[in-house]
Amino acid sequence: MNLRQIGEFGLIRRIQKKFPARSSSIFLGLGDDAAAILPSPQKILLLTTDSLVEEVHFDLSFSTFFQVGYKAMAVNISDIAAMGGTPRFYLISLGLTDQTPQEIDRLYRGIQKGGKEAGAALIGGNTAHSKKTFFVSLTLLGEAPKKEMVTRGGGRPGDALYVTGSVGDAAAGLEILQKGGRAFQPLIRRYQAPPLRWREGRLLAERRIASAMIDLSDGLSSDLSHIMEQSGVGAELDLNALPLSTSLKRYALQTGNDPLKYALNGGGDYELLFSVPRKKVKVLDRLIQSGAVAARRIGALVHKKRGFTGRDPGGRIRKIEPGGYDHFRRN
Amino acid sequence: MNLRQIGEFGLIRRIQKKFPARSSSIFLGLGDDAAAILPSPQKILLLTTDSLVEEVHFDLSFSTFFQVGYKAMAVNISDIAAMGGTPRFYLISLGLTDQTPQEIDRLYRGIQKGGKEAGAALIGGNTAHSKKTFFVSLTLLGEAPKKEMVTRGGGRPGDALYVTGSVGDAAAGLEILQKGGRAFQPLIRRYQAPPLRWREGRLLAERRIASAMIDLSDGLSSDLSHIMEQSGVGAELDLNALPLSTSLKRYALQTGNDPLKYALNGGGDYELLFSVPRKKVKVLDRLIQSGAVAARRIGALVHKKRGFTGRDPGGRIRKIEPGGYDHFRRN
Repeated sequence: MNLRQIGEFGLIRRIQKKFPARSSSIFLGLGDDAAAILPSPQKILLLTTDSLVEEVHFDLSFSTFFQVGYKAMAVNISDIAAMGGTPRFYLISLGLTDQTPQEIDRLYRGIQKGGKEAGAALIGGNTAHSKKTFFVSLTLLGEAPKKEMVTRGGGRPGDALYVTGSVGDAAAGLEILQKGGRAFQPLIRRYQAPPLRWREGRLLAERRIASAMIDLSDGLSSDLSHIMEQSGVGAELDLNALPLSTSLKRYALQTGNDPLKYALNGGGDYELLFSVPRKKVKVLDRLIQSGAVAARRIGALVHKKRGFTGRDPGGRIRKIEPGGYDHFRRN
Repeated sequence: MNLRQIGEFGLIRRIQKKFPARSSSIFLGLGDDAAAILPSPQKILLLTTDSLVEEVHFDLSFSTFFQVGYKAMAVNISDIAAMGGTPRFYLISLGLTDQTPQEIDRLYRGIQKGGKEAGAALIGGNTAHSKKTFFVSLTLLGEAPKKEMVTRGGGRPGDALYVTGSVGDAAAGLEILQKGGRAFQPLIRRYQAPPLRWREGRLLAERRIASAMIDLSDGLSSDLSHIMEQSGVGAELDLNALPLSTSLKRYALQTGNDPLKYALNGGGDYELLFSVPRKKVKVLDRLIQSGAVAARRIGALVHKKRGFTGRDPGGRIRKIEPGGYDHFRRN
C-alpha cells in the first residue's frame, strides 16, 4: 500500500483515527475546512510556525522519521517556551515526496510524542505533494496570562544571564553524524531530540523571574545578540561558566577543538537563555538548588555601549561576534 | 543584493517594515519567538493551514510571484470563508530556493493584498532555506460567534444546494496555460487569482442560511462528496443549472469538450458550495436578487441511499463519481 493507493483523503482518515480530538476547548478538529477552538478567556494566544526541510534541517541518514517528527514539534515548543507559554494546539503542513504510509505514520508518531509531552493537541493540517523536497511545517499555539508573557525586549543592564541545560551538544552531535561517527551518543541524541523546556519557561514567566527570554536555535552568541538588540543592551559572558556537558568536553579534547566554539556558535540546542533582574536572582537560585529548574548563570547584561564581550578562562575580556547559524548567509 | 547578503534576519527586518502590526488585538507581531494576540471574547477561533508548492500547485511560467502570494492567501481565506468566519491573523512559512529579495517582496505583496482585502494581519512566520522546492505555507486564523460556525456536516435531505460565482473556470484556465495559450484571459485570471468569498460565507453564517458549507478546491463533485459523507446524505445535481461562465462555454465549444467536465471535476475555483434548509430558501433568494450574494441553486441534498446523481440537460438521471483532484492519486 502506498500513498497513491490510499490517496490524500485516505491519509486524513488514518490521521483522524490516530489523533482523536479530546480537549473540551476543541470545537472541531481534523476533517473540516478549518479547525475551531475556544481559547481560554483572559489569556493571550501565542503563535509560532517553524519548518524542517530535508537536506537543510535534517538528513534521513542521520535521523529517523520519528525523530524528524519529534524535532519538528520540539523546535515549535521551544518558541512557545521562550515566551513563557503553555503549548496547546497545533497544525501540521506536510510536503511529501515519495514517503510510504509507514514512514508518514512514524513521522506523525514523533510529532505526537512531542505534542503529548507538552500537552498540545493536533487540530488541523494540510498534506501536499512536493516534487523534490520533503518538508514538515508546524504551527503551534500556546497560551499565557497576559501579564506573564516574556519577550526578547525586557532585559536591562545589570540583569544576570542564565541558560538552561547545556550548550554546544547538538552542534557537536551533528558534526559527528556528518563525519559518519557513532560514538558520543549523548551528543548525537541532543541533535536528534532537543529538550522540551516549556515547564521551565512557564515557571520563569509565572514567577516573573525572566525579564527577557529566547530559545537557542541559532547558537548562544547569535541568539543572545537578539536579546541585546531588542532590549537595547550589551552583554558580558563568563566563558568559564558556560554549561558544557562531559560528553562535549571529551569530544572536544579528542578532536582538538575548543569546546567554546560549539557552545557559542553551535545551533540546535533549544535551551532557554534568559535574563534575571538582580532582585530575582535569589528566588531563581533557590529554584535551581531545589532542582525545579536546571539552569546556570553565565554572565550579565551590561550597558549597550560596552557591546558584546566574554571573559575567558584566563580572565581576559574579548569581543564576541555573533556567529550562529543564518540560513541564507551560510548555505 | 541577494538573500545571502541580507541574511535571514535582514529579510525579517524588511518584512517588519512592510507589515507594521496595527490591530489592537495584536500584542506582539513579527520579531520575537512567537506572536501574541488577544482573541475576541466569546468567539471561536478558526484555524487553517494550506500550502502552495512549486511544480505542484504553481508554475512560475504561469503565475507571477505576486499571484502566487495572492493565491496562497486566497486558498486559506477560502477555508475560513467556508466555516462562516472572518479572517483575522496569519503566519507565513516560506521555503526559499534561489529567489531574489525583489521576488520575495513581490510574493509578500501578493500575500499582503489578499490579507488586506479580507482584513487579516500578518503576525508571524518563518523563513527557511529549501534546497530544491520553493514552497509557501500559510496558517490563517479567523473568528466567528460560537453558534454561527458552519461545518460540512449539517446538511439534511431536502436542503437545497447552492454555489457562488461560476464553476470550472480555473481548471480551464490552467489547461490553457499548460497548452501555452493566451486567449480566454478571464479563465486564466480565475486560475491565477481565486475569488475571496469570505463576505458571502460570513453573511450565510450570520443569517443561519447555510446548513453545511465547503469551499471548492478539488472540484465540485469531489467537494460535494465531502458534504455528503459528513452530513450522511446523498445529492442530486441539476446539471443544467451549474453556473458556467460565457468564457468557459466558448472555450469548451472551441475545444470540443463538455463544459460540465470542467464544472464537475475541475479544481481551483474556490467558490462556496452550501446547502440551505427549505425554510431558508426564500431569505437566500431575496439576498441573491438584491445582489448581496452571487449564488445559484444547483440541486438538492437527498437521502443517503439515493447516492450521488445528476439530472442532465435531457432530463436523464445519471450517477456521478467524485472525480476531483487528489494530490496523491493523480500525480
